[in-house]
Amino acid sequence: MSAYTHRRRPLHEVTRDLVATAMGREPADLIIRNGRLVNVNTAQMQDGVDVAVRHGFIAFIGDAAHIPVGSGTTVVDAAGRYLLPGFIDTHLHVESSMVDVRSFARAVLPEGTTTIACDNHEITNVFGLRAVELFHAAAQGLPLKVLVAMPVCVPSIPGFEDAGATITAREVSAAYRRGWAQLQGEQMNFPGVIYGDPEVHAILAASLQAGVVLTGHYASPEIDRGLPAFVAAGITACHEGTTAQDALRRAQLGCYAQQRYGTAWLDMPHTIRAVTERPGLDTRFFTLITDDATPATLVRDGHMSRAVRAAIAEGVSPITAVQMATINAAQLLERSRWIGTIAPGRAADILIVSDLVRVMIDQVYADGVLVAEGGEMVVDIPPFSYPAWAMRSVHVDPLRGDDLRIPHRGTTTRVRVMRVVPGKVHTEQEIMEIPVRDGALQADPARDLSKVAVFYRHEPREGATGTKGFGFVTGLGFRAHVAFGSTVAHDSHNLMVLGTDDDDMVVAANEVIRLGGGMVVVIAGRVRAAVPLPLAGLMSLESADVVAGQVEDLEAALRDAGCPAPHIEMTLSLLPLIVIPELRLTNRATGLVELAPGEPPRFVELTVP
Amino acid sequence: MSAYTHRRRPLHEVTRDLVATAMGREPADLIIRNGRLVNVNTAQMQDGVDVAVRHGFIAFIGDAAHIPVGSGTTVVDAAGRYLLPGFIDTHLHVESSMVDVRSFARAVLPEGTTTIACDNHEITNVFGLRAVELFHAAAQGLPLKVLVAMPVCVPSIPGFEDAGATITAREVSAAYRRGWAQLQGEQMNFPGVIYGDPEVHAILAASLQAGVVLTGHYASPEIDRGLPAFVAAGITACHEGTTAQDALRRAQLGCYAQQRYGTAWLDMPHTIRAVTERPGLDTRFFTLITDDATPATLVRDGHMSRAVRAAIAEGVSPITAVQMATINAAQLLERSRWIGTIAPGRAADILIVSDLVRVMIDQVYADGVLVAEGGEMVVDIPPFSYPAWAMRSVHVDPLRGDDLRIPHRGTTTRVRVMRVVPGKVHTEQEIMEIPVRDGALQADPARDLSKVAVFYRHEPREGATGTKGFGFVTGLGFRAHVAFGSTVAHDSHNLMVLGTDDDDMVVAANEVIRLGGGMVVVIAGRVRAAVPLPLAGLMSLESADVVAGQVEDLEAALRDAGCPAPHIEMTLSLLPLIVIPELRLTNRATGLVELAPGEPPRFVELTVP
Repeated sequence: MSAYTHRRRPLHEVTRDLVATAMGREPADLIIRNGRLVNVNTAQMQDGVDVAVRHGFIAFIGDAAHIPVGSGTTVVDAAGRYLLPGFIDTHLHVESSMVDVRSFARAVLPEGTTTIACDNHEITNVFGLRAVELFHAAAQGLPLKVLVAMPVCVPSIPGFEDAGATITAREVSAAYRRGWAQLQGEQMNFPGVIYGDPEVHAILAASLQAGVVLTGHYASPEIDRGLPAFVAAGITACHEGTTAQDALRRAQLGCYAQQRYGTAWLDMPHTIRAVTERPGLDTRFFTLITDDATPATLVRDGHMSRAVRAAIAEGVSPITAVQMATINAAQLLERSRWIGTIAPGRAADILIVSDLVRVMIDQVYADGVLVAEGGEMVVDIPPFSYPAWAMRSVHVDPLRGDDLRIPHRGTTTRVRVMRVVPGKVHTEQEIMEIPVRDGALQADPARDLSKVAVFYRHEPREGATGTKGFGFVTGLGFRAHVAFGSTVAHDSHNLMVLGTDDDDMVVAANEVIRLGGGMVVVIAGRVRAAVPLPLAGLMSLESADVVAGQVEDLEAALRDAGCPAPHIEMTLSLLPLIVIPELRLTNRATGLVELAPGEPPRFVELTVP
Repeated sequence: MSAYTHRRRPLHEVTRDLVATAMGREPADLIIRNGRLVNVNTAQMQDGVDVAVRHGFIAFIGDAAHIPVGSGTTVVDAAGRYLLPGFIDTHLHVESSMVDVRSFARAVLPEGTTTIACDNHEITNVFGLRAVELFHAAAQGLPLKVLVAMPVCVPSIPGFEDAGATITAREVSAAYRRGWAQLQGEQMNFPGVIYGDPEVHAILAASLQAGVVLTGHYASPEIDRGLPAFVAAGITACHEGTTAQDALRRAQLGCYAQQRYGTAWLDMPHTIRAVTERPGLDTRFFTLITDDATPATLVRDGHMSRAVRAAIAEGVSPITAVQMATINAAQLLERSRWIGTIAPGRAADILIVSDLVRVMIDQVYADGVLVAEGGEMVVDIPPFSYPAWAMRSVHVDPLRGDDLRIPHRGTTTRVRVMRVVPGKVHTEQEIMEIPVRDGALQADPARDLSKVAVFYRHEPREGATGTKGFGFVTGLGFRAHVAFGSTVAHDSHNLMVLGTDDDDMVVAANEVIRLGGGMVVVIAGRVRAAVPLPLAGLMSLESADVVAGQVEDLEAALRDAGCPAPHIEMTLSLLPLIVIPELRLTNRATGLVELAPGEPPRFVELTVP
């Protein structure tokens, strides 16, 4: 497999060559003959179409008989198969795939994704602005087009936890100015937007002044007032609609409905009814996105290909579904003169598809280069050489048993407990009576009660280093002598360890520390499964395939540990996520943060009288 | 009538106020209640819609009962009438209206046009880059949004005439960098594009590097090869399609079909069949434009309103026709986060329309300010104070009789004659025998033969000042002792005078010179009609209404002079336009330029052996 060496040239350098090829004066680099063009500009199928490519751009569409075939020309016979523009995902977090952006590219290119707009929100919580620069640098030279969406909610809510960094309007402006980010990532602090928080609006202003597209995350069912207010702030894309009405109202308000079809959050089958039940609706403001996809989803089911396939299965016409993943997305990004359509002057991101309804992709061309065939990469993407600091993000000394000790007098006490609900993102707060043994609060597997701790793990910083929080969690069904440790702990991604035995928890935490980040399951003192995630404690440099296997192994170990719920590690990773109700654990103060409906978050004590 | 004083604020300054109004915490500046929203985002009609406006932006759409009405709030009852976004014309020349941009604004705002992208091509032929700066300056503070499209074909073809200036890639870059131009105007030199002329591609590169949208003028029926080549150069909008196939092919190629419906060039009724005969076609790449509209058209029939009305009359659904004049145009311009839709965060450019099919516009709001009602402006737009140089552009000394003398020996000779074809833009070349009298070639009204002369009239420049060209024209039917003089003479806009008598021609030319530019008809030694155009010799500072009356008077005079064809002054203004076949007259060399089919232009001698 040859190394991918193509370097993108700007259109302004090659217009004379493109017209020379289009007019037949000079050979093309690539001619795809006799395709069935899925024309997303006019929503037409056009038979017998040739496409000629030069310098990575489409030079010509039509009957290319007049264009000379030179010694350097590749000629491909589409033999009547469909020609589609490469897919565009306008909102996703690469970190959710647990692989770095280069492994991510290797995973999604064979599935027809040729452009992503990725909000590298998680790694920015670890490293701050330098993560944006790093991400931008790591994406250079890829056949996958990567537009970095500037993370704007780091931390998610100030004052309750210590992430590795803080992003303000100053960093946001700098990222655009330096060319590291090309659009604004999801503004998740929608209450801050609609209630006029000055810091949030300073960030909006930074993006608006830079002239970039702003994307949002309006996660409320109240769409009569709050949603128009959110859009009035200049945010023209949002992926948090979960119903047909949510999606339709967004589109009506001129805010692109980014219909989500990720691994766990499957909104599109609901939102798409806005389209399928309204023939004649103009669907230009509807797109498809993945948001969060695990490596297993990417490897086993696909990426945007899976979303397009599912949309068609829901009854959308294939051409409309393809538009949602191509031209509509390109218009959302204000990049339709570059991507999203098979048309002259655009990047030659072309899919040859043998079955449109099932989205069977035979070949993937990115900038005119064949990069994948039959679901496999056919070019080699060299790894990125990450700097040492990016691979050493867990700044915690190995634990000892008493690091997990929660001293308490008496014999029992009443504590606040987080009940996890498998498959859901929220927790429920419960009050449980728990045992005091050896002068400390203890887990109690007999009553499905695990202890959980969060340790600050980022760069040494006064007031943060050495901090930790303790809590208890129920709903997992963990047996005695099991533990789970992880540095994937949204959004601050501190070191989280939980289990039914302090010694096993120490083993789990120390294995995570030894790996430089990742997820570990310990059973009876032995490391039973591990997913090493050395890049920021969030990502592997292995392939998505390898990591998918590791995660499946970890999930099997979690079942052995007593928890039958699928993908429970994803649910656990949200335990510190203080923007979701009801009870969460961070490294700060008492550790426990309560988010009651309609109330701002607040710290609460572990024990209750 | 109060003066228009609204100053546009950038969105980033007012987002907190917009959300405060949307959420009902603070009053709106304007609330329009109970409208029938023509939702161009989703192609839906929505009844009972309120729109709340603050700081010139739309803050809210929906039921605005919760938004307080303050002492400064204007409340308007739409009473079920239609609410449309303001119309956008993405390609026009203000100069064709013969009034300056401020009078133009007064003429088109009552007709619902709230944004124009104008290629100020004509005045740039007179003054060069400083005309672009001037135009930009004159458009400041208008309720009409003016995007200046940088003229890129000045002169139309180098080497054949002397315009007042030359535009190269250097000036094009400067105009973007200095903020005077916001997109590229029509690239008319389509042979230069598709045959790879380096200067033309340097200009394309300047626009592409600046990141602006490029518009084109591909005026050939050959759409199989040349059109894709043209689009491959990065040009994504073109108004030169005249057939349904032309328009469809443009849209299929991802090049916006700017369907023209100006005063004289009425392509839309033909091109629109691409849409009306193809139900289900995605029409997002179809727009409507006017290109050239006379003051009479603006005053008597309307502007974009007329084009929308005509499109509906051709069978397009009203909502699709409105989309072509609003959201599609905004997407062409990559400005849909600002204009083209009634949606939160967008400029409050809103039309209240009582009859959608007839496009009866009751009220026009620009940036939330009521600017026109019942077809009349309700705010006063102060005139722009043009600098002296812009009002003194005719640098020719008054003529004497012998300035028009074409010395020749013998008694008769054979000459090349331009035959004008009323209503068409081309000329036909004929060879005629003409009389020699007093040792000079003479007009001969008995044989419908007028003499025509073109004098360089721009800033003194060595090699240009004092130059003139002579020719003969037939097909007008002019009687004896008539003359027509004009500084509207495409594209270089030198001083043109023609007629059947040298003395009358001198009177006509001298009256044009005295007026500082304009059009004049002289009959029997007396000025019979005049349209003074002192701004660059192209535009009046009077209202469109006044100038429309002057032009109608001039046209009556031309009929009196013997020419019955309507709008013949428009046809005559093209006599020096060397990019259109077959025979043209400029100030340079022999004066006569022949453009034969498939041949480059060349100078030819007046007399033939």
